[in-house]
Amino acid sequence: MHAAGLRLRLLGIDTQQEHVIYMRRDCHVCRAEGFEAQTRVEVVLRERRIIATLNVVDTDLLPKGEAGLSTRAWQALSAASGDVVTVAHAPTLDSLSAMRSKIYGHRLDAQALDAIVGDVAAGRYSDMHIAAFLSACAGGRMDLQETIDLTAAMVNAGEVIDWGRGPIADKHCVGGLPGNRTTPIVVAIVAAAGLTMPKTSSRAITSPAGTADVMETLTRVDLDLKAMRHVVEREGGCFVWGGALTLSPADDVLIRVERPLDLDSDAQLVASVLSKKIAAGASHALIDIPVGPTAKVRTEDDAHRLQAMLEQVAAAHGLHLKVLRTRGAQPVGRGVGPALEAHDVLAVLRGAASAPVDLRMRALALAGELLEFCGHSAPGTGHSEAWRLLDSGAAWDKFQAICEAQGGLREPGVAPLREPVLAERSGHVSAINSRRLARVAKLAGAPGAPTAGLVLHVRLGDRVERGMPLFTLHARAAGEMAYARGYLATHPVVALADEMTP
Amino acid sequence: MHAAGLRLRLLGIDTQQEHVIYMRRDCHVCRAEGFEAQTRVEVVLRERRIIATLNVVDTDLLPKGEAGLSTRAWQALSAASGDVVTVAHAPTLDSLSAMRSKIYGHRLDAQALDAIVGDVAAGRYSDMHIAAFLSACAGGRMDLQETIDLTAAMVNAGEVIDWGRGPIADKHCVGGLPGNRTTPIVVAIVAAAGLTMPKTSSRAITSPAGTADVMETLTRVDLDLKAMRHVVEREGGCFVWGGALTLSPADDVLIRVERPLDLDSDAQLVASVLSKKIAAGASHALIDIPVGPTAKVRTEDDAHRLQAMLEQVAAAHGLHLKVLRTRGAQPVGRGVGPALEAHDVLAVLRGAASAPVDLRMRALALAGELLEFCGHSAPGTGHSEAWRLLDSGAAWDKFQAICEAQGGLREPGVAPLREPVLAERSGHVSAINSRRLARVAKLAGAPGAPTAGLVLHVRLGDRVERGMPLFTLHARAAGEMAYARGYLATHPVVALADEMTP
Repeated sequence: MHAAGLRLRLLGIDTQQEHVIYMRRDCHVCRAEGFEAQTRVEVVLRERRIIATLNVVDTDLLPKGEAGLSTRAWQALSAASGDVVTVAHAPTLDSLSAMRSKIYGHRLDAQALDAIVGDVAAGRYSDMHIAAFLSACAGGRMDLQETIDLTAAMVNAGEVIDWGRGPIADKHCVGGLPGNRTTPIVVAIVAAAGLTMPKTSSRAITSPAGTADVMETLTRVDLDLKAMRHVVEREGGCFVWGGALTLSPADDVLIRVERPLDLDSDAQLVASVLSKKIAAGASHALIDIPVGPTAKVRTEDDAHRLQAMLEQVAAAHGLHLKVLRTRGAQPVGRGVGPALEAHDVLAVLRGAASAPVDLRMRALALAGELLEFCGHSAPGTGHSEAWRLLDSGAAWDKFQAICEAQGGLREPGVAPLREPVLAERSGHVSAINSRRLARVAKLAGAPGAPTAGLVLHVRLGDRVERGMPLFTLHARAAGEMAYARGYLATHPVVALADEMTP
Repeated sequence: MHAAGLRLRLLGIDTQQEHVIYMRRDCHVCRAEGFEAQTRVEVVLRERRIIATLNVVDTDLLPKGEAGLSTRAWQALSAASGDVVTVAHAPTLDSLSAMRSKIYGHRLDAQALDAIVGDVAAGRYSDMHIAAFLSACAGGRMDLQETIDLTAAMVNAGEVIDWGRGPIADKHCVGGLPGNRTTPIVVAIVAAAGLTMPKTSSRAITSPAGTADVMETLTRVDLDLKAMRHVVEREGGCFVWGGALTLSPADDVLIRVERPLDLDSDAQLVASVLSKKIAAGASHALIDIPVGPTAKVRTEDDAHRLQAMLEQVAAAHGLHLKVLRTRGAQPVGRGVGPALEAHDVLAVLRGAASAPVDLRMRALALAGELLEFCGHSAPGTGHSEAWRLLDSGAAWDKFQAICEAQGGLREPGVAPLREPVLAERSGHVSAINSRRLARVAKLAGAPGAPTAGLVLHVRLGDRVERGMPLFTLHARAAGEMAYARGYLATHPVVALADEMTP
């Protein structure tokens, strides 16, 4: 049935998670199969097969008889230049009828959700299909049982780690504040207490740094499952980039579409967070929900609703879950950007005089809760135990030991260009716009340039005199520095008022 | 604020309606702006600006300092190789909050729908955003007023023709059966009666032929509005490809996303059909709804619901609308494919003995209804008047005159390769799978190869002896012929039974 194949040429076009194949309009396959742009096709290379979206080429970008693939598709097929693929119309996906049924307002059962999420994880949905699915599930259209089943489906679509013991501690922060890098400190304290905390983290998607980006300035984080097990067996904790593993892989795909749509769906959020924890083998998960005007969760009501759903779905999956609501009114720590946040983390762990107090206090609060929650500390004693483990240097020793086991600890670098941003008037700091602050750090080069970002010098309520530095920009290149400055010229980040706000 | 620009290079990548820009990952703009794959960006060239999705290039596909555009984006900017564009983060689209509000289950008012549809028409929505919007509106989530407002928004997003007189006749078929090419015949009859019928038609999207494809084998169809006016003023009718005009342009964008999602939304369908008619200046529209097991509308109940919504929305817009439900159990006429359907149309108009009776009867029924509906014929006399205009040769004369006014009438060609498909057993024709038949015609090369397709030799209930031809494949190239044959080997189109089905 298949016409002769097409030779692959490396084009190196990154389309994120969407599989795209590039074929000449006049190629024999397009003509024989009646393909046109956006046709969904099946691409077969040896024993591997993917579904891809066709982009049609009308120029000599591709020589006759050749085809190109997007980076993700190239990886999925383990392709090499010159490999020959065959291309045919994509088979019908049965799960798309289930998706349509959800769009038409019907409930989805566990089997339908397994089929949809399995197809999403395997890259069989186009971004359009994923957007339609997310849209159909948003706005409270998923009931509790559907959310439980969605979570299970996301777990089922990937690997699940069984540590063969318990308790297994985990933590997660919903909707990060810039600089809120408590995870490395909490893992060090909890592991120093003798508990097991095999932490997997993500890289930044839209923020200036993810925990994996921060830890990568200190040690190796792209461990595979075997290497991760080895570290955890030895030290009781780890700092691993989850992207190298395949825990709840559908989540990574869904989240890439969710962001540009800017859809806040509690069901998706809950399934996303909990499926990762369950797949990572956690038995006790502590969830940090910062609440504040520019945070992800903006009101106590929203926080309560989210907490209730998290608790119910976790309970259905046998996961012990505790929620800690924290203040989300301003950034945490001083640095924003991978290396700059790593410096803050090191300062707290080393007990340096310069260590940001807010980061330290948040980390201690979370670690203390986890120590009690996992049964290590008696009720009411977790916080002082965490304090002791940090101040005694036990957490710092554990942190170094984990990093050594992951391949060695190194000092994070410092950006070559550093420029202060000065207060243009005197006054009290009345607001800090977290969203703009993150944007500035990204414009300065974070997280692509690991040393780039900014260091914040003020906190809400601080008294500032005209000409004093509000924060310092760090950049790798003059162009990036100029770009951050240009943005600041029209988008102020720190508001100064004559009177202290109550 | 903008970094220096990027020189455009013609890549010629067709992504359908989605605007895509290709930029090197290491280019100064990507780095300065913090762009990554799928970032939405604004691209400015002289006085034109578009929003596009970024695809990141990691190879020398693009030299340093250059960028590429998808074909649609290239056209939208009227770009030429070497033009210099600037690229920045896309501004926030206010209408996306309205879209999200619909996803969350709220009604959309006329103003919100205007904003959304205007942005869609201007190419400011990614395919993902469009998919989310369509999904949010499907499944009966649009009430009558929203459907009326959506229709208005789609009209407002493009040009509206005012003919300065009335009545202006139009017709439309919902969900075409293969070969159901009544439009050219109806226009010829109605214009021959002295009425005005300025018909705009679409090209095939997923079918083997659209009316514009068929008419293009006979005359020129890509007239602009001025040329179209000239033809209509002179002859009372025309056969113009709507794609060259900008009537309800959002519809063309939405439909490209609707198809791969396979979403059947009454509201979208009604707004799509009626916005085109209203924008084309129609006062009286006749809607043909074929009902049958493999047609778009499958039950009388569905047809009734659709009819009611069409009538209510048309009434709200002051458009006179009449629905004719027709049988949709099998293809119409003999030919399937642009030239082959044109041959059928010519045979009916010329009164040839070989003219397919079913096509003739359907065209006469529709034309008769229109003549009465527009007040030309007294009730009960439209059909015989249509009959008279066709059999007297008046319709054929009018058809030729319109084609001459559009640039001349030519005979459609004939494909060089023709091969019959024979009955493998004797029996009565119990079913003809319209969907597969359309697929076979497309595999044989239609509509890209205008003479390709197939000619059907049997009808439901016909007695067939083993070895008799069921249909004949027409192709331009041996590969396409082989492909159609290959498909038929595993996907029979005509079912033969021992007994005649009742």
